[in-house]
Amino acid sequence: MYEQRIRNQSFLNKIVSAEEASLLIKDGMTIGLSGFTRSGDAKVVPIALAERVKSSERPFKINLFTGASIGDEVDGVLAEANLIHKRLPFQADKQLRSKINSGDILFIDQHLSHTAELVRSGYLPSIDVAIIEAVAITEEGGIVPTTSVGNSAIFAKFAKEIIIELNIAQPLGLVGIHDIYDPGARGNRQPIPLTRVDQRIGTPYIPVDPEKVKAVVISEKLDHTSPITEPDMETKQIAGHLLDFFRHEIKVGRLPKNLTPLQSGIGSVANAVFHGFLESEFTNLQVYSEVLQDAVFDLIDAGKVSFASACSITLSPKRAADVIPNIDRYKDKLILRPQEITNHPELIRRLGLICMNTALEFDIYGNVNSTHVLGTRMMNGIGGSGDFARNAMLGIFVTPSTAKGGAISSVVPMVAHVDHTEHDVDIVVTEQGLADLRGLAPRERARAIINNCVHPIYRDALNDYFIAACKRGGQTPHILEEAFSWHIRYAKEGTMCEKEPVKI
Amino acid sequence: MYEQRIRNQSFLNKIVSAEEASLLIKDGMTIGLSGFTRSGDAKVVPIALAERVKSSERPFKINLFTGASIGDEVDGVLAEANLIHKRLPFQADKQLRSKINSGDILFIDQHLSHTAELVRSGYLPSIDVAIIEAVAITEEGGIVPTTSVGNSAIFAKFAKEIIIELNIAQPLGLVGIHDIYDPGARGNRQPIPLTRVDQRIGTPYIPVDPEKVKAVVISEKLDHTSPITEPDMETKQIAGHLLDFFRHEIKVGRLPKNLTPLQSGIGSVANAVFHGFLESEFTNLQVYSEVLQDAVFDLIDAGKVSFASACSITLSPKRAADVIPNIDRYKDKLILRPQEITNHPELIRRLGLICMNTALEFDIYGNVNSTHVLGTRMMNGIGGSGDFARNAMLGIFVTPSTAKGGAISSVVPMVAHVDHTEHDVDIVVTEQGLADLRGLAPRERARAIINNCVHPIYRDALNDYFIAACKRGGQTPHILEEAFSWHIRYAKEGTMCEKEPVKI
Repeated sequence: MYEQRIRNQSFLNKIVSAEEASLLIKDGMTIGLSGFTRSGDAKVVPIALAERVKSSERPFKINLFTGASIGDEVDGVLAEANLIHKRLPFQADKQLRSKINSGDILFIDQHLSHTAELVRSGYLPSIDVAIIEAVAITEEGGIVPTTSVGNSAIFAKFAKEIIIELNIAQPLGLVGIHDIYDPGARGNRQPIPLTRVDQRIGTPYIPVDPEKVKAVVISEKLDHTSPITEPDMETKQIAGHLLDFFRHEIKVGRLPKNLTPLQSGIGSVANAVFHGFLESEFTNLQVYSEVLQDAVFDLIDAGKVSFASACSITLSPKRAADVIPNIDRYKDKLILRPQEITNHPELIRRLGLICMNTALEFDIYGNVNSTHVLGTRMMNGIGGSGDFARNAMLGIFVTPSTAKGGAISSVVPMVAHVDHTEHDVDIVVTEQGLADLRGLAPRERARAIINNCVHPIYRDALNDYFIAACKRGGQTPHILEEAFSWHIRYAKEGTMCEKEPVKI
Repeated sequence: MYEQRIRNQSFLNKIVSAEEASLLIKDGMTIGLSGFTRSGDAKVVPIALAERVKSSERPFKINLFTGASIGDEVDGVLAEANLIHKRLPFQADKQLRSKINSGDILFIDQHLSHTAELVRSGYLPSIDVAIIEAVAITEEGGIVPTTSVGNSAIFAKFAKEIIIELNIAQPLGLVGIHDIYDPGARGNRQPIPLTRVDQRIGTPYIPVDPEKVKAVVISEKLDHTSPITEPDMETKQIAGHLLDFFRHEIKVGRLPKNLTPLQSGIGSVANAVFHGFLESEFTNLQVYSEVLQDAVFDLIDAGKVSFASACSITLSPKRAADVIPNIDRYKDKLILRPQEITNHPELIRRLGLICMNTALEFDIYGNVNSTHVLGTRMMNGIGGSGDFARNAMLGIFVTPSTAKGGAISSVVPMVAHVDHTEHDVDIVVTEQGLADLRGLAPRERARAIINNCVHPIYRDALNDYFIAACKRGGQTPHILEEAFSWHIRYAKEGTMCEKEPVKI
């Protein structure tokens, strides 16, 4: 019955129900789960586990490691069941976030290229069970992932036991799009041979020791992704500023006509930026990113993107229904790699990427907060933004200049949490405009940001702060007593604006 | 007369005085200078330039790019002569620092591995004249540097004109210790083939187009280095904690007996940490660092370090007088490389380095300020600490727990400037103890730091802050109104301590 999916006979005897497989997971264990930005995540076993634990009286906690965020139906359900002790390296679930911010769940917010290294190094608790969603099992017993690779390869390698969720609702056409490469232990490692976006350097499956596979569970649960907000006026303006900037760089000879390989973070702003290319003159673009969202497939369809490399495909339900069953159409233009490879500093630096990520807020000197609302409350996590920005040829951060109808300025005197220091931030863009910070000292950066990026209702106040700070002197002038006054005002009065709150 | 030093005859006709060579430098130019941490810096031409400009009425400004800090006699003299418009990527001079903090000189504080990339990319002003200190000129017209490589190779490649300062006071024994490798343009680059600390991958000289060399100036000026403070009680305690930690990691199998290649920042604390190995059981150590200070040569002499790779040798005058004339003694144990290679993320990650750098202050969550006193005033610069910490197998930051006789706590509620985010900081050490932050969520990090690193006179206050912050909640609990209260108190009252200032 599963001949096409399970090509190694010995695995047929391992088929069990999700409930049965979930019994392999015991209190206190560390679990490594496939899944990256809600794609390719193991689903039925974690859900069965949550069901089992919910109906039990005994306390039950696991550490949960993943590639990045997984579907709400998994992260949300596990958080609600009070099942998670420690979670890493990224999440995007409402219930989980709430328990992280209350201190009930310990969250390690990690550069997404770092998790594999930490697993290797033995600093983290060792992985007891890896649960990996697969579209097929090869003759050698290798696991062919589904819509993401994430950390699955490293989890499978270091886990004591493995559960495979064989997802028969995903098409066999996915076989062949993956490229699994393991750099090996640090200190005893060869250069990663990748020099081109479209280059294959590994195997199309995750090699595993078949002995370690303790259960195969049949699943038909599709990725639980969200619809993507269509580009609006603000995000279209941001994309417009960026495209104009690229045109200028091409004109002065600093960028080739088809740019360099593009990376873009997840979310609506990022998707809108890629969307902006659709109606542009740019062609023959390449993508070397973490996640491929709707816009990348639109660009491939339009003949504008010639190749895309990532570690996950995360599409809106509507787009997924079109792309995934017809994945053969994209097979010669697509590679999915481990996140260690998509996000590896060695490769990001070598390939000369243009990296575009979303900021929550940035300050007058170009330091970026990607994660912490008002400096304390976790939104999602740093994700790959640090891997990319630090090593990018162009490190770009985008955000609308205001939020909450103008009550929040995304450009502030000092960010209340730093994820990216000014050293790693080349360009910042809001719907107001773009500030090119390359080659500028902090005081010059401040002028460029105040003049180009801040919303007019906040511009004078930000300029006043900067001028007063400069009177005190310093390489990076600040008035520490007032540096967070905008955040404090928002917490107390519901607006950062000194004047009557204006609904923009 | 210079046959042994100038092996290409055509260069003999280019010999001019320093004054004459300095005439090549015109108002508004961008100058690339050899030199890294006060070693191998071009000296006589910049000093002649300062003399010339001082005696002129006309305003004269240059942009000054170097490898890292250069001798006070150069940076100080040029700053005093009001000659510098923009300076990058690092400095350590009192007069220069003062003009940076007053806003009179624009300073770009840069990851030391980034400068070469920026020069290539054409974002920075292009280099008009490179001035490179050399110990010899090869048959091919290649430049053999002296005691540092720094950014000399990339400056020489991209400069329109080159001046060579041929330093005949430096021994010809230096010929052969350098290894110059240029990765080439991003996007069109092969993997850097280096997989071992002692591996040579380039040429023993900087290849240049002889046509570009417009002047050769004979110099006898030695590097103007400072004496190194001997390890004291505090720095010895820091070294002791670190060595105990390494022993523990070896015991549990996470580090090999001879550790992994070591990097250590510049300065007395860093030197003391290396010094700590001298009386230890460790042998067969390797160093892959930026700067080799006195302690590394002591370790080589003691047979404890088997190989050292760096981009500069910066010794106290006394040690230099012994080591440099006898450099042949160390030739099979030493390579000097461009700073792009010593600090390259690709190589740091591949080799699995243990990286030890000095913090100015760190906060309860392990964010590190390496550069800005009270958040605003530049000390020296971020240097290579970011290149190393981000990609290290172990990212370690060290500092005494207090400064100014106890009036400053190096462990604070929130750092007033962030150079290294918690994601990049594995271990923090003060004389009080060591906090191992690997695998810990922020609230756990805070407890480890408060318990192990802070000075007893500040421990209760820091703990009170943390407990109060936790009541407000968040992934990274803070009280924004009070986060900088320690810094503000110090600025106003001369102490961070609420109680009567205690002289420790």
